[in-house]
Amino acid sequence: MEETFVPFHGIRNDLKGRLLCYKQDWISGIRAGIRILAPTTYIFFASAIPVISFGEQLERDTEGSLTAVQTLASTALCGIIHSVVGGQPLLILGVAEPTVLMYTFMFKFAKDQKDLGKPLFLAWTGWVCVWTAFLLVMLSILGACSIINRFTRIAGELFGLLIAMLFMQQAIKGVVEEFGIPKSENPNQPALQPSWRFGNGMFALVLSFGLLLTSIKSRKARSWRYGTGWLRGLIADYGVPLMVVVWTGVSYIPTKSVPEGIPRRLFSPNPWSPGAYTNWTVAKDMLNVPPVYIIGAVVPATMIAVLYYFDHSVASQLAQQKEFNLKKPPSYHYDLLLLGFLTLLCGLIGIPPANGVIPQSPMHTKSLATLKHQLLRNKLVSTARRSIHENSNLGELYRNMQQAYNEMQTPLVYQNPSTLGLKELKESTIQQASSGGYMDAPVDETVFDVNKDVDDLLHVEVKEQRLSNLLQALMVGGCLAAMPMLKKIPTSVLWGYFAFMAIESLPGNQFWERILLLFTAPSRRYKVLEENHATFVETVPFKTVASFTLFQTVYLLACFGITWIPIASVLFPLLIMLLVPARQYLLPKLFKGAHLQDLDAAEYEEAPPTTYNMAFGDEDVHSRTSQLDSAEVLDGIITRSRGEIRHSNSPKITSSTPQTPREMQSSYSPRVHELRVNRSSRSPSGKGLEIKRTPSPGPSNLGETSKGSSSC
Amino acid sequence: MEETFVPFHGIRNDLKGRLLCYKQDWISGIRAGIRILAPTTYIFFASAIPVISFGEQLERDTEGSLTAVQTLASTALCGIIHSVVGGQPLLILGVAEPTVLMYTFMFKFAKDQKDLGKPLFLAWTGWVCVWTAFLLVMLSILGACSIINRFTRIAGELFGLLIAMLFMQQAIKGVVEEFGIPKSENPNQPALQPSWRFGNGMFALVLSFGLLLTSIKSRKARSWRYGTGWLRGLIADYGVPLMVVVWTGVSYIPTKSVPEGIPRRLFSPNPWSPGAYTNWTVAKDMLNVPPVYIIGAVVPATMIAVLYYFDHSVASQLAQQKEFNLKKPPSYHYDLLLLGFLTLLCGLIGIPPANGVIPQSPMHTKSLATLKHQLLRNKLVSTARRSIHENSNLGELYRNMQQAYNEMQTPLVYQNPSTLGLKELKESTIQQASSGGYMDAPVDETVFDVNKDVDDLLHVEVKEQRLSNLLQALMVGGCLAAMPMLKKIPTSVLWGYFAFMAIESLPGNQFWERILLLFTAPSRRYKVLEENHATFVETVPFKTVASFTLFQTVYLLACFGITWIPIASVLFPLLIMLLVPARQYLLPKLFKGAHLQDLDAAEYEEAPPTTYNMAFGDEDVHSRTSQLDSAEVLDGIITRSRGEIRHSNSPKITSSTPQTPREMQSSYSPRVHELRVNRSSRSPSGKGLEIKRTPSPGPSNLGETSKGSSSC
Repeated sequence: MEETFVPFHGIRNDLKGRLLCYKQDWISGIRAGIRILAPTTYIFFASAIPVISFGEQLERDTEGSLTAVQTLASTALCGIIHSVVGGQPLLILGVAEPTVLMYTFMFKFAKDQKDLGKPLFLAWTGWVCVWTAFLLVMLSILGACSIINRFTRIAGELFGLLIAMLFMQQAIKGVVEEFGIPKSENPNQPALQPSWRFGNGMFALVLSFGLLLTSIKSRKARSWRYGTGWLRGLIADYGVPLMVVVWTGVSYIPTKSVPEGIPRRLFSPNPWSPGAYTNWTVAKDMLNVPPVYIIGAVVPATMIAVLYYFDHSVASQLAQQKEFNLKKPPSYHYDLLLLGFLTLLCGLIGIPPANGVIPQSPMHTKSLATLKHQLLRNKLVSTARRSIHENSNLGELYRNMQQAYNEMQTPLVYQNPSTLGLKELKESTIQQASSGGYMDAPVDETVFDVNKDVDDLLHVEVKEQRLSNLLQALMVGGCLAAMPMLKKIPTSVLWGYFAFMAIESLPGNQFWERILLLFTAPSRRYKVLEENHATFVETVPFKTVASFTLFQTVYLLACFGITWIPIASVLFPLLIMLLVPARQYLLPKLFKGAHLQDLDAAEYEEAPPTTYNMAFGDEDVHSRTSQLDSAEVLDGIITRSRGEIRHSNSPKITSSTPQTPREMQSSYSPRVHELRVNRSSRSPSGKGLEIKRTPSPGPSNLGETSKGSSSC
Repeated sequence: MEETFVPFHGIRNDLKGRLLCYKQDWISGIRAGIRILAPTTYIFFASAIPVISFGEQLERDTEGSLTAVQTLASTALCGIIHSVVGGQPLLILGVAEPTVLMYTFMFKFAKDQKDLGKPLFLAWTGWVCVWTAFLLVMLSILGACSIINRFTRIAGELFGLLIAMLFMQQAIKGVVEEFGIPKSENPNQPALQPSWRFGNGMFALVLSFGLLLTSIKSRKARSWRYGTGWLRGLIADYGVPLMVVVWTGVSYIPTKSVPEGIPRRLFSPNPWSPGAYTNWTVAKDMLNVPPVYIIGAVVPATMIAVLYYFDHSVASQLAQQKEFNLKKPPSYHYDLLLLGFLTLLCGLIGIPPANGVIPQSPMHTKSLATLKHQLLRNKLVSTARRSIHENSNLGELYRNMQQAYNEMQTPLVYQNPSTLGLKELKESTIQQASSGGYMDAPVDETVFDVNKDVDDLLHVEVKEQRLSNLLQALMVGGCLAAMPMLKKIPTSVLWGYFAFMAIESLPGNQFWERILLLFTAPSRRYKVLEENHATFVETVPFKTVASFTLFQTVYLLACFGITWIPIASVLFPLLIMLLVPARQYLLPKLFKGAHLQDLDAAEYEEAPPTTYNMAFGDEDVHSRTSQLDSAEVLDGIITRSRGEIRHSNSPKITSSTPQTPREMQSSYSPRVHELRVNRSSRSPSGKGLEIKRTPSPGPSNLGETSKGSSSC
């Protein structure tokens, strides 16, 4: 994305790109059929449960001015609008924790003001939203999002980890509170006597850990050894919602022997109870707000605008990382513009606005990649089976599969139909087959193992469409009607779910993986090389990785510390945004350029593609594709194979270079490849992980390095 | 072992064999140094915790006549004597559940007899023990143990699984009881009010699952990626005891907010409290027992003798399975004789006798295999390092290592010093090295990777010695003095430990693995082939495996059902012993001979070694040795690689046959090997797992089969 600040330029570009695929966004979603419900339900729960919990938090902190009804309404409303007229449909909108903190702060302020007080609180926040909307629209028009490329991995991943820490903190705090007396309750009721509180707390531990552990297990169901395929698929797709239901059921087992209120359950007013509508007509109160407060609303509005600008863009960015191989264009500017209008709308009807959320947005993309993989796989497997049945030879088999693959591709006007996914391995397989003399004979399962080889052919692709986002937003809206059912969920199950979300967001975060690497025993670091791993593991000396990670960790802890300071807490995005100039001007002085590129690629530092890079790209692609063992490892692929993918041209150019049979064989058996790597990599002194290359291949000695790499 | 019933023949043989290595049994144990404490502590906990729990059970059921003091004393006493003068030092003795059931039954009988009553109960059991001892001594002298070979895998493993089920049942029952009111307690105390009982039960769930999950995790610490090597080793070795301490500590966290008695803890009298000694002088009461009861004691004595004969022999057999590659001889007859004397001793001092226990005995052997592996590995690694340091070439390196290995071997008079462990892979490595031209050059880490290749050279071996058994028995005795400390352990931790023991005993049990195989999705069965697996997986059609396993499962459930019938419960070993004739006469009519041999090898059906067998042995050895990836997988090797190892001669004969470089390479990279297996194995119809061979290679078509196998 070019960095330009010509007004409207970015918005126009975004609109142009997204309009081209708008129709296809819907068709593609509808064509996926019933399977679209898997990512939809998954994201619906990830979206609704925190929003309900934040709503309860707001209810306590705003003395009932805002409740879960309002947070759900906002999430549903903004979600529906965004999924229909928004730019990037992978982005999930919701009322987030910073918004809750901000509204709590504003409530405390407004309540103490004689001229505002509780009655005019919502009207005043209406003004705050008006200002926020204005600022967001201005930022969007002036192209503020074009600097999104400066938000490198270091900032995005730090933000992701911070959110995971906040979710985990909430989970722990929630469970601990189960042992105490809730603020708003009458402490004399039987369920709050010390003995029952102890039992309630212990029960909460059982329920929350039960949910956490079973949810984590169920996500991996696809690779279970037991049970039939469809059952495993069902559990993997719907396991987490199912576990919420199961553990809610478990919470009813001891009902007869415990007093009411054990375990504690969600508490929220019915949306149809009297008084639940007062906020919808807040717009007419807005003119009653004294002018000085209307002007003063600029202050919180600026904070919220900065927050939303950052949050919304980073959530969108994390949902569109390069390793997902997205084919449709981003839409940062236009989405920010839309967010401005959504904020205005929410302000006028007195509900807290929603913005792009982490970790739900990247979770959404990941779940759609799983969906796409399954769809492609089913199609190709049936094509291959038919070809084998029709006694085709290997060439025909591949032609048929290629055709089937192309049929599944998005026919985008601005892009050539991609054939990346199937071409590469096809050639090496054909070579292997021809060296084995199978070439013209009818294919059978020994030459082409349908279940296995199809997986080898597939790349990570994402089912990019609007339907799942729309449906999940509608389901969040449905929660309003289903409030009496939601109230059956124990709060402890909620805390377990928070912990689950925190843990789900970790894999794939290179910052997190580097932290783990620091704790990995030196003698075990080679194990990282045996799996999918990012570039830096091989190219950057361990000491550099360690100091870079330590810097980032200290920064993270500083950000986390700030969230504990009452007012400053909302400003932690500012601290994270400070990372952008720090990355651009400070870090290059502390770390070598090449290392920094591998640890945290920034487009503005991108070196032109060289032989060295291409050679590397080749290896990278090989390790990525040859690892695609079978469908269930897709999650692992998406989340763990994240290398800093450089701007080499298409990676396929290298795979057409002649291969010796030995190399080909090794591309078919990842272990051999890795074992060779290990042998040469582990130096007896256990110094680090640098292999094949000299420890620091700075851009200045590229020639030398590529020589070095070709010699082994 | 030959089947002979000449009196004293078996005992004499046993004594002759064990006396030869008696001195070495001690020296070897002492030489192991401080590391011997790892298996010792592991087994001490496995031995003491159930015994304490059974003691509490006895105390309730015998109105205090027998307590944990007596069961601990018996376990310690018998353990010490057996470890010093017993035959097979791998066998662990303890008071077992069947003994407890028998004593409970006898107490109920004696209490209702006017002439016996509670006062003469122990004196009467003294007579029962006298008779039992007589029967055991007679069985031993007459060579009853020489039919031990008829106790095939089917009986031993069914018994093992039954014990696991009983342990698990106890764990579940224990946790459920934590919610109820204990029989002997005053129900009016605060801790037994409904509210606190609920809290206590929930706390018990937390503690028992906490112990179970962390113990299972800690046993796998050696393969963790994080933490330094010694820390991981320490956790793997001492993790389970450590977790008992940790969770006992956790149980004290809420002390301030709960009344006394939450969580419930072990309850046992001090051994020095008045009245705890009454039973020691029981011998002088024995003459007060009316003669009719002295004669009548034959009836329970017969039941106990049958029970002990079976229990003791099978425990010993499971501790000496072929896959452990033991080098010292067994001692079934002599150990049964000693058991007779131990029973007499226990009877005379009024404590319940101890006998060989499952799963502790096989657990003992497994932990000693881990110890031996570590000792061998350390020695060889340091030798290899020194050789590399001294610039030796590969030949010298291997000579040095061979020498070091031989130094570690047991110098047994009746056996040639074994060189099995190192020879095999040495040759292929040397071949590989010479083809690479490394042969005369000084070795470096690229040719011989010290950490990796040493593991490849090692077989499963067991540190056979007496010290660990003696020490654990002494520690059990020490428990008597440490009773006040033991009382701090919550009962719920105990239940978690029972569940842990049940689960620990499962892997390696082929019956269990076959049950799992039945639940494995047909499309996933190939995964079993990728791991270490038993012979039957490849040679026996799935349907046969399924029906054999179903037969065994029904039998198991019948045995389990019988344990629920009050009096018959003690007789379940009889039902299991019935399996021996069933195996010998009934099963061969239902299953093909070759299949039966693979599923349940019986020596009396053993076919003479043929080319086919040897060819198979070769493959088996290859898959076994090449999988020895690194030290931590040893547990997996020991427990999962159990094939029915046939009577082929030494497996090494086949590895000296010339190998093509390609084969050699594949023996270095297990994956290639497996991938090839998979390709050809998975038939499109998913019919089963039979590969390489025709589905049913009965002994009649051996020639044909071996032809078939050589063609692929």
